[in-house]
Amino acid sequence: MRPVFVFKADGQRGRQWADVFGREAPDIDFRLWPEIGEPQQVRYLATWVAPADLGMQFPKLELLFSTGAGVDQFDVAALPPRVSLVRMVEPGIAHGMVEYVTHAVLDLHRDMPAYRRAQQQRQWQPLPVRTAAECSVGVLGLGSLGQAVLAQLVALGYDAAGWSRSRRALPGVRCHASADELDAFLARTQILVCLLPLTDATRGMLDAALFAKLPRGANLVHVGRGPQLVPGDLLRALDAGQLAEAVLDVTDPEPLPETDPLWRHPRVCITPHIASMTQPQTAARVVIDNLRRHARGEALVGLVDRARGY
Amino acid sequence: MRPVFVFKADGQRGRQWADVFGREAPDIDFRLWPEIGEPQQVRYLATWVAPADLGMQFPKLELLFSTGAGVDQFDVAALPPRVSLVRMVEPGIAHGMVEYVTHAVLDLHRDMPAYRRAQQQRQWQPLPVRTAAECSVGVLGLGSLGQAVLAQLVALGYDAAGWSRSRRALPGVRCHASADELDAFLARTQILVCLLPLTDATRGMLDAALFAKLPRGANLVHVGRGPQLVPGDLLRALDAGQLAEAVLDVTDPEPLPETDPLWRHPRVCITPHIASMTQPQTAARVVIDNLRRHARGEALVGLVDRARGY
Repeated sequence: MRPVFVFKADGQRGRQWADVFGREAPDIDFRLWPEIGEPQQVRYLATWVAPADLGMQFPKLELLFSTGAGVDQFDVAALPPRVSLVRMVEPGIAHGMVEYVTHAVLDLHRDMPAYRRAQQQRQWQPLPVRTAAECSVGVLGLGSLGQAVLAQLVALGYDAAGWSRSRRALPGVRCHASADELDAFLARTQILVCLLPLTDATRGMLDAALFAKLPRGANLVHVGRGPQLVPGDLLRALDAGQLAEAVLDVTDPEPLPETDPLWRHPRVCITPHIASMTQPQTAARVVIDNLRRHARGEALVGLVDRARGY
Repeated sequence: MRPVFVFKADGQRGRQWADVFGREAPDIDFRLWPEIGEPQQVRYLATWVAPADLGMQFPKLELLFSTGAGVDQFDVAALPPRVSLVRMVEPGIAHGMVEYVTHAVLDLHRDMPAYRRAQQQRQWQPLPVRTAAECSVGVLGLGSLGQAVLAQLVALGYDAAGWSRSRRALPGVRCHASADELDAFLARTQILVCLLPLTDATRGMLDAALFAKLPRGANLVHVGRGPQLVPGDLLRALDAGQLAEAVLDVTDPEPLPETDPLWRHPRVCITPHIASMTQPQTAARVVIDNLRRHARGEALVGLVDRARGY
């Protein structure tokens, strides 16, 4: 009997995954939610939100794949220990994130928010141009997305820096590690990009104390997770001039309610969590590759360390 | 006696050029306008706008350097035949242009104008994401700027094409040449980038007839010269939906008058000719290099073909 793989998502993506599995993994019994047959046969599940009572409902589940880059939507503590949790590491997500962050950094570096405001006043007002080398960009979080973003920023000539919990070495990037080096990293960062995973350690991290450690007039690009930001602290930092502009692709909650003051602040740009999307074709291939690795007893790409939370 | 070089521009840039010449070309007598001494000694002149009666005023002038990428501000026909006209080909101009066009293409490809409008309505409305490979960008003009822009667009994965008068071959770019192939180029271009020099052949080229050859809903990024665009045709194409958005860094005249309807069109984004600026350090070095080439009787970088106009 072929091992059963269940995919839970909306219909269009499901068909695209089914096509790839049909062509490239006919040895696996691919089933689209909710037509999953006997739950006790299911060994692999790919989903964004886990069904309730996962452990009870799927007694033979071995692998749980997140269909997105994050796993913070899962209650990791409630997962049975036998289930390995795998986050999505696929080139499509990274491409989208590189596009979004590159756009946001260029938008801020080249003063586009100011030019949009000048256009509303019909004012032709050239501003001095800084070179990319004169503009420091710091990325919080140096996982696969942070690394891809920094490679593009280095190629454009930015003064690029990164910070992560454990030390990394990336070409052309000043790399800082651990809480000890966070203040030095922030002190030199004119454009701060947050690409951290959501964990207990990063929840509420983007607050007044952190903003105060940036140079006056710094900018924020937030593409991590909504609960990492303290919105009231952001608005106060903008109004006080400590921060100049903020670009937010994530909020808490999502969708952001129509009454939220973030929508109306003239120095806040909001996009509806569109920075980066899993691309069905490449994502299905990455999952198939992980199923092969699992069958051979090899290490999985994107396996989550439950203690660390990502 | 050292040969006399005159630099005519604003004070700050002049000091930066003077520094570079002082360090790297002490054999040249660098003079800052208007302190130029005897005009009949001047052999080289770098300026954006040529003084009146150039030929009469500087009887020994051999080289006239434009301090910008274009030479359309000069009355080429009025220059004495003995004077060689050189446009600015320096890495700083290309960097700025790559930044500006990359930003504009990402802004259009990733639907940022629509998200800015949605934010004004406080609407959280994710739109389907196209990959860069599904988005065709076509660059009109394949000189040093067009080539640099296309290299970055190819690196980001865009479906990249280019058109120029004479045939070029660029890695990863569908290259079209001559008037014969213009229609085929336009028919496949969702984002059209104009980087052509201003000549009699390109004046008024961005008109209703050209817009009609683009796919419906195409976008324009205009970073050439203002008089290449017929503004009334642009506004009609936008209102009819033939074009979706326009990003203009050049207008005619500049500054654009406060009463011009382009300022107020909701699908036009205007910046005040800031895409790309000559960087004093690199520009001065490029000019010094050309002075060396001239002394050795070698070909100049950026020498203008007067018949062609660029």
